[in-house]
Amino acid sequence: MKGFAMLKIGEVGWIEKDRPKCGPNDAICRPLALAPCTSDVHTVYEGAVGDRHNMILGHEALGIVDEVGSEVKSVKKGDRVIVPAITPDWGDEAEQRGYSSQTTGPLGGWKFSNFKDGVFGEFFHVNHAEYNLAKLPPDISLEAAVMIPDMMSTGFMGAENANIPIGGTVAVFGIGPVGLCGIAGAKLRGAGRIFAVGTRPKPVEIAKKYGATDIISYKNGNAAEQILELTDGAGVDSCITSGGGPDIIMDAMKAAKAGSYISNNNYFGKGMTDKDWIPLNRADWGVGMASKQLITGLCPGGKVRMERLASIIQTGRMDPALMATHVFKGLDKIEDALAMMKTKGPDVIKPVVMCE
Amino acid sequence: MKGFAMLKIGEVGWIEKDRPKCGPNDAICRPLALAPCTSDVHTVYEGAVGDRHNMILGHEALGIVDEVGSEVKSVKKGDRVIVPAITPDWGDEAEQRGYSSQTTGPLGGWKFSNFKDGVFGEFFHVNHAEYNLAKLPPDISLEAAVMIPDMMSTGFMGAENANIPIGGTVAVFGIGPVGLCGIAGAKLRGAGRIFAVGTRPKPVEIAKKYGATDIISYKNGNAAEQILELTDGAGVDSCITSGGGPDIIMDAMKAAKAGSYISNNNYFGKGMTDKDWIPLNRADWGVGMASKQLITGLCPGGKVRMERLASIIQTGRMDPALMATHVFKGLDKIEDALAMMKTKGPDVIKPVVMCE
Amino acid sequence: MKGFAMLKIGEVGWIEKDRPKCGPNDAICRPLALAPCTSDVHTVYEGAVGDRHNMILGHEALGIVDEVGSEVKSVKKGDRVIVPAITPDWGDEAEQRGYSSQTTGPLGGWKFSNFKDGVFGEFFHVNHAEYNLAKLPPDISLEAAVMIPDMMSTGFMGAENANIPIGGTVAVFGIGPVGLCGIAGAKLRGAGRIFAVGTRPKPVEIAKKYGATDIISYKNGNAAEQILELTDGAGVDSCITSGGGPDIIMDAMKAAKAGSYISNNNYFGKGMTDKDWIPLNRADWGVGMASKQLITGLCPGGKVRMERLASIIQTGRMDPALMATHVFKGLDKIEDALAMMKTKGPDVIKPVVMCE
Amino acid sequence: MKGFAMLKIGEVGWIEKDRPKCGPNDAICRPLALAPCTSDVHTVYEGAVGDRHNMILGHEALGIVDEVGSEVKSVKKGDRVIVPAITPDWGDEAEQRGYSSQTTGPLGGWKFSNFKDGVFGEFFHVNHAEYNLAKLPPDISLEAAVMIPDMMSTGFMGAENANIPIGGTVAVFGIGPVGLCGIAGAKLRGAGRIFAVGTRPKPVEIAKKYGATDIISYKNGNAAEQILELTDGAGVDSCITSGGGPDIIMDAMKAAKAGSYISNNNYFGKGMTDKDWIPLNRADWGVGMASKQLITGLCPGGKVRMERLASIIQTGRMDPALMATHVFKGLDKIEDALAMMKTKGPDVIKPVVMCE
Repeated sequence: MKGFAMLKIGEVGWIEKDRPKCGPNDAICRPLALAPCTSDVHTVYEGAVGDRHNMILGHEALGIVDEVGSEVKSVKKGDRVIVPAITPDWGDEAEQRGYSSQTTGPLGGWKFSNFKDGVFGEFFHVNHAEYNLAKLPPDISLEAAVMIPDMMSTGFMGAENANIPIGGTVAVFGIGPVGLCGIAGAKLRGAGRIFAVGTRPKPVEIAKKYGATDIISYKNGNAAEQILELTDGAGVDSCITSGGGPDIIMDAMKAAKAGSYISNNNYFGKGMTDKDWIPLNRADWGVGMASKQLITGLCPGGKVRMERLASIIQTGRMDPALMATHVFKGLDKIEDALAMMKTKGPDVIKPVVMCE
Repeated sequence: MKGFAMLKIGEVGWIEKDRPKCGPNDAICRPLALAPCTSDVHTVYEGAVGDRHNMILGHEALGIVDEVGSEVKSVKKGDRVIVPAITPDWGDEAEQRGYSSQTTGPLGGWKFSNFKDGVFGEFFHVNHAEYNLAKLPPDISLEAAVMIPDMMSTGFMGAENANIPIGGTVAVFGIGPVGLCGIAGAKLRGAGRIFAVGTRPKPVEIAKKYGATDIISYKNGNAAEQILELTDGAGVDSCITSGGGPDIIMDAMKAAKAGSYISNNNYFGKGMTDKDWIPLNRADWGVGMASKQLITGLCPGGKVRMERLASIIQTGRMDPALMATHVFKGLDKIEDALAMMKTKGPDVIKPVVMCE
Repeated sequence: MKGFAMLKIGEVGWIEKDRPKCGPNDAICRPLALAPCTSDVHTVYEGAVGDRHNMILGHEALGIVDEVGSEVKSVKKGDRVIVPAITPDWGDEAEQRGYSSQTTGPLGGWKFSNFKDGVFGEFFHVNHAEYNLAKLPPDISLEAAVMIPDMMSTGFMGAENANIPIGGTVAVFGIGPVGLCGIAGAKLRGAGRIFAVGTRPKPVEIAKKYGATDIISYKNGNAAEQILELTDGAGVDSCITSGGGPDIIMDAMKAAKAGSYISNNNYFGKGMTDKDWIPLNRADWGVGMASKQLITGLCPGGKVRMERLASIIQTGRMDPALMATHVFKGLDKIEDALAMMKTKGPDVIKPVVMCE
Repeated sequence: MKGFAMLKIGEVGWIEKDRPKCGPNDAICRPLALAPCTSDVHTVYEGAVGDRHNMILGHEALGIVDEVGSEVKSVKKGDRVIVPAITPDWGDEAEQRGYSSQTTGPLGGWKFSNFKDGVFGEFFHVNHAEYNLAKLPPDISLEAAVMIPDMMSTGFMGAENANIPIGGTVAVFGIGPVGLCGIAGAKLRGAGRIFAVGTRPKPVEIAKKYGATDIISYKNGNAAEQILELTDGAGVDSCITSGGGPDIIMDAMKAAKAGSYISNNNYFGKGMTDKDWIPLNRADWGVGMASKQLITGLCPGGKVRMERLASIIQTGRMDPALMATHVFKGLDKIEDALAMMKTKGPDVIKPVVMCE
């Protein structure tokens, strides 16, 4: 089978590999719809997860089941499925402790295009398939559904971890697709005023549709200071950091009230200093005692999460298809889609690829 | 001053009383807008809180500050304010334990028309005014704002206690104004499918606007069984009970999944048996072991809660004015409004009275 | 193989069965130490889970692994293991929702001597063995360790669900082995004063060793009223119900503060009325609004839980072996042990059987 | 009246001041027992809270009520009371949001020797006295009780925020009196293995008595690496940072599992860099995605907290008097006690001063 792979740091291309083997708890799928992720760009061009050789890329997919192992009853050959970006080892000790994305080690639930071949191939392998694959409801579009595996799950996690009270104030730093889903998620948790920090016109337009009440541009000065000014110095109940560099937590720390949550769903590819540090601003952190809680996580996976996110689309609570700004046809177009994600023009939020 | 009072069980009328005294932490207010509550009906005509003599009724009000005590800095004479139905004794031991509505004893934060004269008079007294009164934002209508003190606060509490996951399924039993706010609250917490149980056309119409996806009528059979059928036997993640008789928890217990929350914001005026019992159906409760958690509460009060609910209106997340089906002018019309609440015709959700 | 079984309601005896089959995710174990549970008595003599024919009894065991499936790496033949009474289907939708004991349906994680043969046989089958079996540490006694699978896990759950604040007051209703573990669990969560309700001398002695500060006897009047008197009318922050009849929740409801948790780990074998109801006392429940939260659950299972409970013994936080009041030798003695559990003399807490 | 004061940064001495005035919600107290805090040392000699002139020091006290305002009913002249180090403005917006120590602004509940005169004087002023002062139970020693206002409350908070599961593993960094109370608190929340990081012999002795199972010395290498080695690479479920320099969070980040809580109760007097940063080690933090949650807080205050902590002593759950290594007699000895806290010899944990 062929797949679109990271050949080494900085280089991509099509390769040939054997179709993956299917164990008793596994499934093998063909891609139905795919989307490249900013993480794929980080992985290839920044070597963010370290060097990889001939590893097929991609972790955002809808699929068609091609084969299932003997213990897999919940899906069968031919089923159209939502494939979570994170496929936990259900039952693993981290999962029993409540952290399903950290199974087998830190970030260990993230397997596709990290520890094994990803979804940008003619076939891909799914572990713990009984518990990871969700059936794709027929009443939602592929453009919408392909946002479920990572964008919605990660972005909503940002809002869920932010402990937003009904009517509370929220600041979302970054309005890429994950940040946009953080905005939508904040609205879904009952936020009142939502400050969205970003400048590109297309994301700004969607941010407003998803619930942002105030748009903050870095061009008008420090974002946190603008938020403080707009709240008469009070700051916000919850911050979500979904973009920016290694100093983004400091903006959140400044904008957050004493007694608040800062929810990070940023992937920090590099640190602020030569010692690889992410800094906290001591004074804004209340010398460590102002109850500004810093919560993190990795995209939740699994069947139930996928089903619940699908339900958000089915009930019209949010329309993620608005983010599918560019649609390609054919698996071979994944190369163009990734290139578009890399250069990211002003009107690009998320390119998607329809495989059938 | 004059006030509209419960004279004794079953009888109401206008009485004369002295204007209340203002202690150092208190405020005295005049009414700006009022609404009668079903609880007022229970109090008078069912004697639900016991007998009361010449007690002024009412606990849903917007007010104008007429006097403040020496320690009250946050509001001053002439300010237009939102008056919470529940005015906690902030700092009381129950409040320090996390239960601000239970200060000084069970339900002790509920003072208006329960332990002291209510708001249906020319003046009314507010305890702990520094911390209970919120300024009324100029950009929201009185019809909307008068829903904040009790309807929104109680109804949303139902949703907050129901531990709704994003995309989870919710059943709301009862679509009076509290139930409608429970539906809106469920949507605000990120519910997917929301089953609303009720039949009156006007509330059904509003229920859909507030987020209900499925309307369940008792006329078509047992509500819980209908919900089970519509969910392929799975049941729901969360139930909110906001109406019905003493057997309503049993419907919720049947409709709830193993592993779920049943959030009650019903005021049970009487029990199911001559022993004054509210029954749980043992088998549906999983013989006590199916993790169907039964959570209750009393409307949250206080300044911050009022401000946050006002923000929900200001940011357009919900329009509670839809519930103000009938609007009267003049304090003296509170009598008609209460009568309307008692008879509750098919198109009545909430009559409100504008006092100025 | 032979096993000690429920032949039908009210009748037990030894039977012959085939050794169970081992699927890819399973293990087959031999018993190392066993204990009968009050539930076994309920199951056989009250038909509490319905009729069963020739079902091997028992769900409290330490074991020796005899065979593992192809996908099981964490244990191997010959390992000595702690076998949880509840063996969740890890990854099942209820587990993904956070309720690992409710997999495949209400109470569905409870398989031994409920849906399949239990552990009172020469061999027994363990599902999801990779994630359910924990290695038995060599430094703890079998008498102590055999309390882990159910007694400690269930009793501690009672305390965990009771939301005990450090220094809070707790009432534990019932001082059988589960109630005793509830007391120990309450101490482990930081309770201050612990009221233990019971009368038998041996359990009373252990209750004090496990942390009870006040012993309440039903013989001196209503337990709840005694607790209210001893707390100057305040009541307690948390109640744990671990025994008694279908009216036990009402005692807890009366003893609990407005704003409190009632944590049930009782198995209600029958209801209070001919309609099979468990009653709540409406007035003590604050007419449904006093924030007295009723939380339930079923014994948590799984490998991590077992390891953590073993750690409690290893670090000397609690000595569960005090409850092993009677020790038998040989699998064939399980019959005597169960009979002892049925008659339960004044000095019996828990008989245990050493199989090797 | 006289008081022992910070004259300016680096200088202390006795000064004369007017006895404070008592408003309607206030109380004036005389000291009964006092203890200097490391924070007092930071305040004076490091200027940690900024410059202060002629501000009476101290925030750890038991007192005797000398006067109460008109609204204070819960205590009266002559009562012996526990005075919390943090005296929240109960009802303030931060308190209504759930953060009672942050009232009126960041760390604003900390008033004594920060925003106003402290307790090292002949009289001191207590705000919101109805809700802040707790009666001192007659059955506990002053040496024990004087640990309640700050040491126990802060140290236990460290454990409470650390989200310790029953049987979980905990690392406590720093074994000053707050760290020791963190260890005791971890045991009170049900920790299994507790790693205590420190070297001074007297604290090490007490650490073991309070529940530490493993003592880790910085002299044997990096503390986090030792903990990882002792846990076979797994790390711990919870970290509590109660001492060390601005790099202490990095030790915790390294020792913590993917999926864990790091609970800080350290007062960071200075940052790691010239930009005043507290650094997070990006890789150990899982590039921001390993669910290592960083929680902070400021010592909880208020009457209920004090009563609950007193109950911990009364029920024998912990003996804080073990930390009172040096006892002085007479208010004038507070000068010597503070000097001892500054130099902190190897056998000093906490000097205390009996004033009567």
